[in-house]
Amino acid sequence: MVTATLRPVRSSLSQNSAITMGNCSQGCKDYFCRPKNTNIRIKLPVVCFTWQLAMIILFGVFVRYNSESDAHWAETKIQQNITSDIENDFYFRYPSFQDVHVMIFVGFGFLMTFLKKYSFGAVGFNFLIAAFGIQWALLMQGWFGSLDPATGKILIGIENLINADFCVAGCLIAFGAVLGKVSPVQLMVMTLFGVTLYAVEEFIILELLHVKDAGGSMVIHVFGGYYGLTISRVLYRPNVHESRRFQGSVYHSDLFAMIGTLFLWMFWPSFNSAIAYHGDGQHRAAINTYLCLAACVLTTVAISSLSQKTGKLDMVHIQNSTLAGGVAMGTAAEFMVSPYGALIVGFLCGIISTMGYIFVSPFLEKKLKIHDTCGIHNLHAMPGVIGGIVGAITAASASNLEYGKLGLINTFGFTGALQNRTPATQGGYQAAGMCVAMAFGIVGGAIVGGILRLPIWGDAADENCYDDEVYWEVPEEDEEHLDSIPPILEYNNHMIHKQQEM
Amino acid sequence: MVTATLRPVRSSLSQNSAITMGNCSQGCKDYFCRPKNTNIRIKLPVVCFTWQLAMIILFGVFVRYNSESDAHWAETKIQQNITSDIENDFYFRYPSFQDVHVMIFVGFGFLMTFLKKYSFGAVGFNFLIAAFGIQWALLMQGWFGSLDPATGKILIGIENLINADFCVAGCLIAFGAVLGKVSPVQLMVMTLFGVTLYAVEEFIILELLHVKDAGGSMVIHVFGGYYGLTISRVLYRPNVHESRRFQGSVYHSDLFAMIGTLFLWMFWPSFNSAIAYHGDGQHRAAINTYLCLAACVLTTVAISSLSQKTGKLDMVHIQNSTLAGGVAMGTAAEFMVSPYGALIVGFLCGIISTMGYIFVSPFLEKKLKIHDTCGIHNLHAMPGVIGGIVGAITAASASNLEYGKLGLINTFGFTGALQNRTPATQGGYQAAGMCVAMAFGIVGGAIVGGILRLPIWGDAADENCYDDEVYWEVPEEDEEHLDSIPPILEYNNHMIHKQQEM
Amino acid sequence: MVTATLRPVRSSLSQNSAITMGNCSQGCKDYFCRPKNTNIRIKLPVVCFTWQLAMIILFGVFVRYNSESDAHWAETKIQQNITSDIENDFYFRYPSFQDVHVMIFVGFGFLMTFLKKYSFGAVGFNFLIAAFGIQWALLMQGWFGSLDPATGKILIGIENLINADFCVAGCLIAFGAVLGKVSPVQLMVMTLFGVTLYAVEEFIILELLHVKDAGGSMVIHVFGGYYGLTISRVLYRPNVHESRRFQGSVYHSDLFAMIGTLFLWMFWPSFNSAIAYHGDGQHRAAINTYLCLAACVLTTVAISSLSQKTGKLDMVHIQNSTLAGGVAMGTAAEFMVSPYGALIVGFLCGIISTMGYIFVSPFLEKKLKIHDTCGIHNLHAMPGVIGGIVGAITAASASNLEYGKLGLINTFGFTGALQNRTPATQGGYQAAGMCVAMAFGIVGGAIVGGILRLPIWGDAADENCYDDEVYWEVPEEDEEHLDSIPPILEYNNHMIHKQQEM
Repeated sequence: MVTATLRPVRSSLSQNSAITMGNCSQGCKDYFCRPKNTNIRIKLPVVCFTWQLAMIILFGVFVRYNSESDAHWAETKIQQNITSDIENDFYFRYPSFQDVHVMIFVGFGFLMTFLKKYSFGAVGFNFLIAAFGIQWALLMQGWFGSLDPATGKILIGIENLINADFCVAGCLIAFGAVLGKVSPVQLMVMTLFGVTLYAVEEFIILELLHVKDAGGSMVIHVFGGYYGLTISRVLYRPNVHESRRFQGSVYHSDLFAMIGTLFLWMFWPSFNSAIAYHGDGQHRAAINTYLCLAACVLTTVAISSLSQKTGKLDMVHIQNSTLAGGVAMGTAAEFMVSPYGALIVGFLCGIISTMGYIFVSPFLEKKLKIHDTCGIHNLHAMPGVIGGIVGAITAASASNLEYGKLGLINTFGFTGALQNRTPATQGGYQAAGMCVAMAFGIVGGAIVGGILRLPIWGDAADENCYDDEVYWEVPEEDEEHLDSIPPILEYNNHMIHKQQEM
Repeated sequence: MVTATLRPVRSSLSQNSAITMGNCSQGCKDYFCRPKNTNIRIKLPVVCFTWQLAMIILFGVFVRYNSESDAHWAETKIQQNITSDIENDFYFRYPSFQDVHVMIFVGFGFLMTFLKKYSFGAVGFNFLIAAFGIQWALLMQGWFGSLDPATGKILIGIENLINADFCVAGCLIAFGAVLGKVSPVQLMVMTLFGVTLYAVEEFIILELLHVKDAGGSMVIHVFGGYYGLTISRVLYRPNVHESRRFQGSVYHSDLFAMIGTLFLWMFWPSFNSAIAYHGDGQHRAAINTYLCLAACVLTTVAISSLSQKTGKLDMVHIQNSTLAGGVAMGTAAEFMVSPYGALIVGFLCGIISTMGYIFVSPFLEKKLKIHDTCGIHNLHAMPGVIGGIVGAITAASASNLEYGKLGLINTFGFTGALQNRTPATQGGYQAAGMCVAMAFGIVGGAIVGGILRLPIWGDAADENCYDDEVYWEVPEEDEEHLDSIPPILEYNNHMIHKQQEM
Repeated sequence: MVTATLRPVRSSLSQNSAITMGNCSQGCKDYFCRPKNTNIRIKLPVVCFTWQLAMIILFGVFVRYNSESDAHWAETKIQQNITSDIENDFYFRYPSFQDVHVMIFVGFGFLMTFLKKYSFGAVGFNFLIAAFGIQWALLMQGWFGSLDPATGKILIGIENLINADFCVAGCLIAFGAVLGKVSPVQLMVMTLFGVTLYAVEEFIILELLHVKDAGGSMVIHVFGGYYGLTISRVLYRPNVHESRRFQGSVYHSDLFAMIGTLFLWMFWPSFNSAIAYHGDGQHRAAINTYLCLAACVLTTVAISSLSQKTGKLDMVHIQNSTLAGGVAMGTAAEFMVSPYGALIVGFLCGIISTMGYIFVSPFLEKKLKIHDTCGIHNLHAMPGVIGGIVGAITAASASNLEYGKLGLINTFGFTGALQNRTPATQGGYQAAGMCVAMAFGIVGGAIVGGILRLPIWGDAADENCYDDEVYWEVPEEDEEHLDSIPPILEYNNHMIHKQQEM
């Protein structure tokens, strides 16, 4: 019965939207405040089709297999005196790649399903933009990093796939800040520009500055975090509280979110070690991340419990802050940060991230007008900054004693033009890298946010945020119950409606 | 209250079944139309016990470890001059094997949980038949492919486990067509024959015709698809609409299905590369599948949005058609189909598969009387055919220039008796292979469907399809609420029942 | 409406608790029976903070990277003539490690979400204690097994991470017995002592007795099972039936539990092969476990169906007993148990474990006062004992013919001081190992259970067991519905309340 009357209420809200808009227009341009039209039947297909066609054309012109995935590998092996197929980079990186892939699609996707009525949007739009993003990232990152000088082709292998997944992670982080408040078309635009900015920023940081950032604390999390927060600021909706009935979770949506949390948490060692150098680099990165995340869980629980009157735990903290350690270990994972160093970073991150949810998020919303649906400031931006700092300090204090002479060269790539760079200098460059990431996030986010404010993208009205009904065919929850209502109840139901009419 | 009265309603439906059957019997034999008895207390245990005992005996007679999993490996290494344990095939294939394993049990299992009241059956029966199928497949495939000529034993290693999982995939696809309409005993029978047919068909295609099909577009998907569709045709239930109250999804069942979708989607690169040859073969198969699937998501979203009045997305399309690219890339994954080639295949498959859900499925049901619960025609049969065609074309156009001389020989196995086979001939054989797969599916499905029509298997009546209550102990959903109904409401409840009696 | 009145009912129950306690105090000490205080706002944070700080300090003093994860690896390679980075143990074990990691956090965590109102506790507390346990296990196991004699440091690598996960598995098994009846503080204490006992027991069994137990049938499952059961006995709550309204599952909670089941089932081959020796050891362990688990599914289904009037299946059996084969294959997985041997073990375990749920669990509860929430007796303790026996028999009957001379030495480690140990002797030691595991479980559990009875740990009253409301902020399920109740219904609601007052 309740459900039967739910729909009319919603549509009456929709009728109100014109009025709400009327108030709004008394201050800003009519153009930006006309009633929202969420019909995306033309926009979304056009964007998907044309962009996918563009990808095909660009891939046709530019992208080929690299020497390890090309059928000429049999000859390459002979030329390079490689004795076994197991030396193919595929076997070094494929298990990590698949773990990263799970993090991107199941991890990020399900982490955002916590809202009671926006789980389709969370997991579905995550799927859409990640699938587009990885293609665009292969091109953008290829032009900057994997271009064969002889042929002008981008040569791809397993490492490129991992890097494309990484790049998309930055955009998915940004998605977390605007979850439920934008249309899928806006998300596609956000991803297009996000990937582009990421590739440029990554090139500057990793290639020009020669900064090390295997797990992407700066390149992925700082950039993605500030990119999303800035966009959310520009798109600020003063009346989003009109959708407050959808802003919470329900019991099972919180459990779905835990699927995302756990797959992110478990596979983060693979994330931070996926593109670390072969051998001890990958090995150490996995160990450090494993330890850092473990410590992070305990302090998250501690602060979460402390923050409530009777010590009850808050699912928001458990779902998010437990992951902050993985973010913060991104840069330093392959360094000799030592096991207890990793624990210390995790210890601090759990505290800071949970505190962020308790104190910083409300502040950002009230004072800075940044509404951050998933709390990416606490999970990505802040821990990413910590990760950058930890990386800079660890790099600056590296020594021959600790790494061995060969180990130091391998870990920091002090070869060729960089053979005279000292660890201390490297530390400085690491810090500079973080500033670049942050600048790209904020400036890029401001520009892209401006573009997304154009009233042509089909976003929902303030009172229809966080609601899958806007962009999805949602099944009738209680159809079954209605079907099976016995005659007497239907009669009662009928009576109630009659009463309503009276 | 609603729930309290739900059960009587259902049982009254059950009483109606005799009447329904009465109508039916006016046309067909009494034998086939007697009232359905879904008691499987004897049938199911007998099938499980005897078949499992048979497996033990047959394994005892035939199955042994192969040289890489036998304790004599230490000696094999010395004999064959293998310097490192890492050369053991286990390390080439185990990560892919585990991904495939996840696809079979979580991927297929959860993909089918979308029905509101048949999730136990989906994931539970999937579990049962896959667990039986992999054992039977090891034997059947072993007799045809891994028999040691000297001892008459089947020697198994990691590749056999992958192949067994592949074989079971064919049967699970067929399960999708009849989901909710058959008993677990019927599913076991369907799997027994399905695995048998698969092994013969696979032997003819891969060994006799020497067709390449690493990811099984033809061997798995075309066969499995037509096998299931034909069985569904033979078992056609004209009155299945009596169960229409269970035929939809609910919000959370759609989310459970997305778990299946995503694990299938993410791990499909492992599926198509799992038994590709070492080195560049596996590497390239993973890249091609990754790209093809990414493109497929965008066109699926585009068509899904186009098909609805206001551009809303349909979860059925997102859950299924996004996977069509993986199916279609099965045959050509290890070929030099080139990155943009993979994108084109994905582009087309997303469109065709989604169109299939919109136009072809209703046509099949109304005109051809094929009711296809999960739409396997659109996800497996049709994309499988596309995959076969793509494979044939790619093989026929292969050249020394593209593959390198050694690469061409490795990729297509042009050695020994086949050393004079040209790519063009190979293309012809590829096309022939697809016809064999389709023929096995249709003819095999017709025969097995006939067997399954015997009224001895405990399947449910038309009005009890898609309902877990038939074969599962289902928890009382609202027990808790009933427990906590305050006296006044119980009083009201009582009054309503009194009114009913009046 | 129902929900609106739910809360008052609960709080009235809480008021009753004082009375219940009053009855109880008429027999036992007042100290133990004072009203329960579940406020853990100080206790839990204190435990988390201090223990995590202790971990940091101990790691600082003791834990360093081992030669394969240290940056000196570049030099180690040269010294030890290692030609390729792929020889790093990381590449042998990392894929299995990640699978084990998934089993610990998603597998165990979600398996226990089956209760309708304790899913947060299941997955959340599992997360907390596992994250603490792995740190403490690295230390405890390190002191006993990985201590560098020269420097007194624990040197860790990927194998240590796997072993830490294994160790935690023992504690998570024990958690299953007391699920819903203890506070998170008690769980932390249980884990602290559990890991400690495990490390000692493991050292005695694997190092002193030189018993082989790659998959931990004895070391993990027998120990963990009896540890948990004994604790549950000591903490026996005669009035736990007062929480019976929460003791069942709901439809979707059973599906969440299936996620846990399937990830455990699929990755169990990785569990049993993760620390088996390189090459054929890992290969064979995976095959044996795969087969054993497959057989187990069929007999579980058979017995489950037999046990119900109309042959309906019981989700409890499918969720649990299907896994018994993995437990029982733990010890013998790397032995030449032969494929059909593995099937026989699975066949028997499915029967015995399911019978356990039907007959043994009620017996344990009524006669021995052991209330075992998840049935760990049937899933871990009993199958673990079977696994120990199978291991002892298989070891005792090992021969040069079967293993090859080198293979026998490799498999059982008959080198150095043990070079004269015969398989028969080894079989005796295996049996002795199981007794040690059981003794540690029972004696340790009794002591720890006694400690946990102290009324200072914040556990819930008998009528508030299995309820997440006690330790978690639980979202209001029907907030949305209440929000959208139209005036007329609210009016009705109001009337009902008025009637109540009358």
